Formats: sequence, structure tokens, C-alpha cells
Amino acid sequence: MSHDQLFSCVSRRTLLSTLAVFAMLPETLMSAVAQTVTGDPLPSWNDGVAKRSIFNFVTAVTREGSPDFVPAPQRIATFDNDGTLWCEYPMYVQLAFALDRVKTMAPLHPEWKDKQPFKAVLDGDMKALAGTGERGLVEMVLVTHAGMTTEEFSGIVTDWLAAARHPRFKRPYTELVYQPMLEVLAYLRANGFKTFIVSGGGIEFMRPWSERIYGVPPEQVVGSSIKTRFEMRQGRPELFRLPEVNFVDDKVGKPVGINSSIGRRPIAAFGNSDGDLEMLQWTTMSGGLRLGLIVHHTDSEREYAYDRTAEFGKLDKALDAAIENKWTVVDMKKDWKVIFPPSH
Amino acid sequence: MSHDQLFSCVSRRTLLSTLAVFAMLPETLMSAVAQTVTGDPLPSWNDGVAKRSIFNFVTAVTREGSPDFVPAPQRIATFDNDGTLWCEYPMYVQLAFALDRVKTMAPLHPEWKDKQPFKAVLDGDMKALAGTGERGLVEMVLVTHAGMTTEEFSGIVTDWLAAARHPRFKRPYTELVYQPMLEVLAYLRANGFKTFIVSGGGIEFMRPWSERIYGVPPEQVVGSSIKTRFEMRQGRPELFRLPEVNFVDDKVGKPVGINSSIGRRPIAAFGNSDGDLEMLQWTTMSGGLRLGLIVHHTDSEREYAYDRTAEFGKLDKALDAAIENKWTVVDMKKDWKVIFPPSH
Repeated sequence: MSHDQLFSCVSRRTLLSTLAVFAMLPETLMSAVAQTVTGDPLPSWNDGVAKRSIFNFVTAVTREGSPDFVPAPQRIATFDNDGTLWCEYPMYVQLAFALDRVKTMAPLHPEWKDKQPFKAVLDGDMKALAGTGERGLVEMVLVTHAGMTTEEFSGIVTDWLAAARHPRFKRPYTELVYQPMLEVLAYLRANGFKTFIVSGGGIEFMRPWSERIYGVPPEQVVGSSIKTRFEMRQGRPELFRLPEVNFVDDKVGKPVGINSSIGRRPIAAFGNSDGDLEMLQWTTMSGGLRLGLIVHHTDSEREYAYDRTAEFGKLDKALDAAIENKWTVVDMKKDWKVIFPPSH
Repeated sequence: MSHDQLFSCVSRRTLLSTLAVFAMLPETLMSAVAQTVTGDPLPSWNDGVAKRSIFNFVTAVTREGSPDFVPAPQRIATFDNDGTLWCEYPMYVQLAFALDRVKTMAPLHPEWKDKQPFKAVLDGDMKALAGTGERGLVEMVLVTHAGMTTEEFSGIVTDWLAAARHPRFKRPYTELVYQPMLEVLAYLRANGFKTFIVSGGGIEFMRPWSERIYGVPPEQVVGSSIKTRFEMRQGRPELFRLPEVNFVDDKVGKPVGINSSIGRRPIAAFGNSDGDLEMLQWTTMSGGLRLGLIVHHTDSEREYAYDRTAEFGKLDKALDAAIENKWTVVDMKKDWKVIFPPSH
């Protein structure tokens, strides 16, 4: 048992005891006890409209007898990943992974020296890579993400993440997650929510570490995927990853993915870009008190600042929709005391 | 709040208190307490090899310090639905639904009187319907299952199930679930398992009632699906069901569906037909103590008897594989004291 597992067991036991004590107390006492026991569940958030909107929403949907009360099994919250839970600049982490994979695989593919999009990657020419367009990028992703079993791919991702460092912050990517959002995930779960990741990124790229880093188990991760094929090989059942797109969990794909994998409408959704617009619409525009929240990247000193004209994580239509629909817009610079968890 | 919801809230609270008490007791006391508190968790099972194999497996994987111990988050159990959790004779319930839908929709489609496969359905000629082959059946399913929003379809299924009765047992289909299997579901959950349905049937056909009947929430249901499309209509976000197959969650599709929706390998799998063979292989043939179980329909008096030559739920290859791989084979007639829960 690793330290992480041990820690998570201990917390679960503590949590269970705490929950049971709550269950035996009269309802009026419960919130007082919760305050005393946990203090401020969002300590990395400055007081302000954004923080209050989260508190108000959770209080309203969890208080029995409230007109906005939602029974626990229906408390589904969905979180985008890139730019909402972890840093997506200077490029999507999965893109950095794919570029490194091309370099690792290159010795087995001498023809790549003269063949796009691989030539551009090997030359370190990002402009030429962008010039190969969506077709070039998809080809690169398929070649680097297929051709192995699901278990092998999980190992490749885990090994890469252990070794790779962010070019600016010089830390593992899995440490460049947003501390204030980790607190939101934990706060929602402590209030009976089930938290899901709903990302345009690859589902199998997130699952090997989502439980350890976010407390979100693999079965609560929704993402883009390639096709797989079941085969018995030498008496062992295996799933092989095929170079064929299965599902793109972005934009209009997000409500489709949510319906397909979760099967009920979330009551809270968290995003940061136009890729999250439809998920926010699907979540909030269906009657009842709902929470839509957008992380606005406004902090070039501690992280990055980008929105309407961004290359990754463009936030334009969804920013207009946020005002129109009264979604919470988080101003990273003003609302967050810290961005990342302390280094360990 | 319905009676069902109220009941499930009360049980959840009771369960939480009980679990917390367990968590505070020394491990050696825990199993004794469990015995005393719960008695026999599988009271509808006769003593025998099948019942013992379930007990032995659960004891081995949940006892800390046991060489076969599996941490709770990895305790994933998957259950086929048709023929494993509920009755699939004289035909799949979803097929009965589709036939009724054709009759309901017929007045809007005068052309069906002369067009297969619809003519066969309207004439009540099952032989002619079978003669239209897979193509005819798929066309009938698509026409009856598409062309509405996901919410509308959920309502249609719920209304139909409330009114429809099984031709032989004269009871609602949702009462024709196997009492011994309901006990297995509850027993596994009480031991930290997460229970999933993995069915060849339509995912949206099961989700409206899986939580109420099986205690399995929509997000833990995996099944076959048609495509959906997100659209804003009159300011409302909707998902429309399209007449196009998306995924067939049967045979080699089951491990694919499990990987796609759950993202980790189950440690226990329950099926009844050759459609479950690959799920059982994927679950049990990967090292470590695993439980594979097949429900063998041997009871023509209390239910139905069928296996190697059956029209629905054919059990041939998987029966041979069960012997070879030491999966548990349940003899319905001998192993189960009752088949269905009492009428209410």
C-alpha cells in the first residue's frame, strides 16, 4: 500500500465516522457542526462574489426543506480538465506528451525525417506543425497513442508524467493543478456530490492519475477516446488501442459524453473555455438552481492571462454567455490566494 | 419524495452509521459483528458450491492482510442484465417494448401495413419478423427508439414499464428480477464493491429504473446505445436521439464498454450467456483471485430452462469456458430458494 493509498483509507474512515455522527444529529445542528469541524472549506479563495456563489449554491441544494434541495444521488458536478483543473499553457499537457512520444519513437521510423507532421516535430518547428492543420495533429495523436494495449498505454503515461517537467515552472505537470479547484472538488464531495471530469483530452491520458491527484476515480472520468479491440492473445485477454478516433468530448460532444457516461444532467459545471459552453448550457438551462462557473485566466504573473484570442483555451462565446446566464466568472488574479499547491 | 426514495434515504443513513461503527472496531471483531448484524446476506440461496464460492471470494478480497486483499476502490463488479438480473423469456423485455411501440406509432405510419419489418409486427407474425433478419430488427429498434429527446424517451420507457405485464407471470417486468441476485448486489455493496450493469440492452432503456430496482445509479449502467445530437431549441438545450447505432455492448463489445465507461478491470463478473463470455474472460483471466459466475437457466417450472440451443440467451461456449476456467455455474433450480421477489 502506497502512502497515497494509506492516506486515502484513513481519510475515508474518518469521513465515514463524521458522516454517521451527522446523520444522527438533528438537522439544525448539522451545519453548525460542519462549520466547527471543517472551518473554511475554501481557504485558498479570497472573499468575493465567486467564493460566495459557490457557498450559496451548495448550501441551497443540500439543506433539506430548502426549495432548491437536491437529493444526494442527483448531485452531479462536472469539471473540465485543461485550464480548469490544471495548467494548459504553453500547450496542452497531452500535446507535450505526443511531441515527446514522436521523438522517442523516431528511431523506429526513419521515414519521419521527411514526412509531415513528424518532420516538423523532430525539427522543433511548431509553426510548420501548426501548418499541417487538424489532419496533421490528429495523425500525430493517433500514431503516438495507438498500437499498444490499454495497460501498456497507462504505463507509458505514468512514466512520462513522472519524468516530464513544465518548461516555465520546472515542476511535474501533476503538481500544476489549481489548489483552489482541489478545494472545490473536496468541498462538493463532502456535501454529497459525485465529481466527474469531462474533458476534451484523452480519457486514458487522465485516468492513470486522476484518482491520486483529484480524488476522481477512473469511472468518473469522461474524455475523448480512440477505438479499442478485444483480443485473446496467448491465452490473455487484451484491449488493443487502434489508430481510429472513437469520440471527441468537446463542445457539443460534452453534453453527449455526459449523457452517455453519466446518464443524468449535472447540477454544477466548471469550465474555462468555449469548449465548455455546451456543457454549461446543458447543466444550467434546465430549470432549478444550478451552478455554472468559468475560470478566467487573468494572472500572467502567477500563471497565464488569455481569453478571446487565445490559441489554447479560447474563451469568447462562453464569456458572453456567462454574463447573459449569470454564471460565476472567477478572476484568477483577484479570487485566488494561491494558484498551485506547495511543492513537495 | 416517493416511498422508494424515502426508504433508500433511511437505509443509507443506517448503513453509514453501521459502517462507521465497523471502521472503529478492531478488524477481528468486524466479521463477527457483520454476522450478528446482518445474518445470512444471501437468504434466498440454498447452501452449496455456488453460494460458498461467492462468500469465499468476498471474504478473501475484503480481509486486510489476506494475500488476495483488494482495496475498496478497485472492487468493481459487473452484471449482465437480461437473463442475469431479470427474466429474458419469452423474449427480451426491450423487444416486447419495441413491438408495442410499433403498434402505438402505426396510426402515424399507414405505409407500415405493407412494409417489413413493420407489417410482420402489426400482423403479429413473429416468424415473418425473424425472417427480416438482423437488418429488419435493427430498423425496428431504431425507428422505435429514436426521433425524440433523451428526456422524452425516458418518460416513454417509464410509462410503458408501469403498464406492461409479462405474458406468463402477469406481473410488471421490473418485478421479474431475480431475488437471489438482488441479494448478491446488496451483499457486494455492503462489502465496499461498486456494482455496475454491463448489458447488451439499450443503456437508456435501463437507466430510468436501475436505481429503484437494483440500487445501481444511471452512471453505473453500461449498455448499447444510439447516437445523440446536442441542440439548442427555443432556448432550451436538448439531446436528440438519432436513428444510428453508436455502440453494441455485447460479446467483444463488453470489455470495450467496460474499459470505456469504467476504466478499470472488474474483479467479479456475472452473466448467463455467450454474450458475456468476453466480459468473464476480461475479468477473470488477469491474475489475482477473481469471481466469474454464470446463471444457468434450469428451472422450467418456476422460470425457464434453456442453454446451448436457445433463441435468446444462448449459453454454449461460455458454459464450456466456465468449466475450463472454474467459474461458478449457478443451477437455478437447485441453488435458488425463490426466483422472484414477492408481489407487492
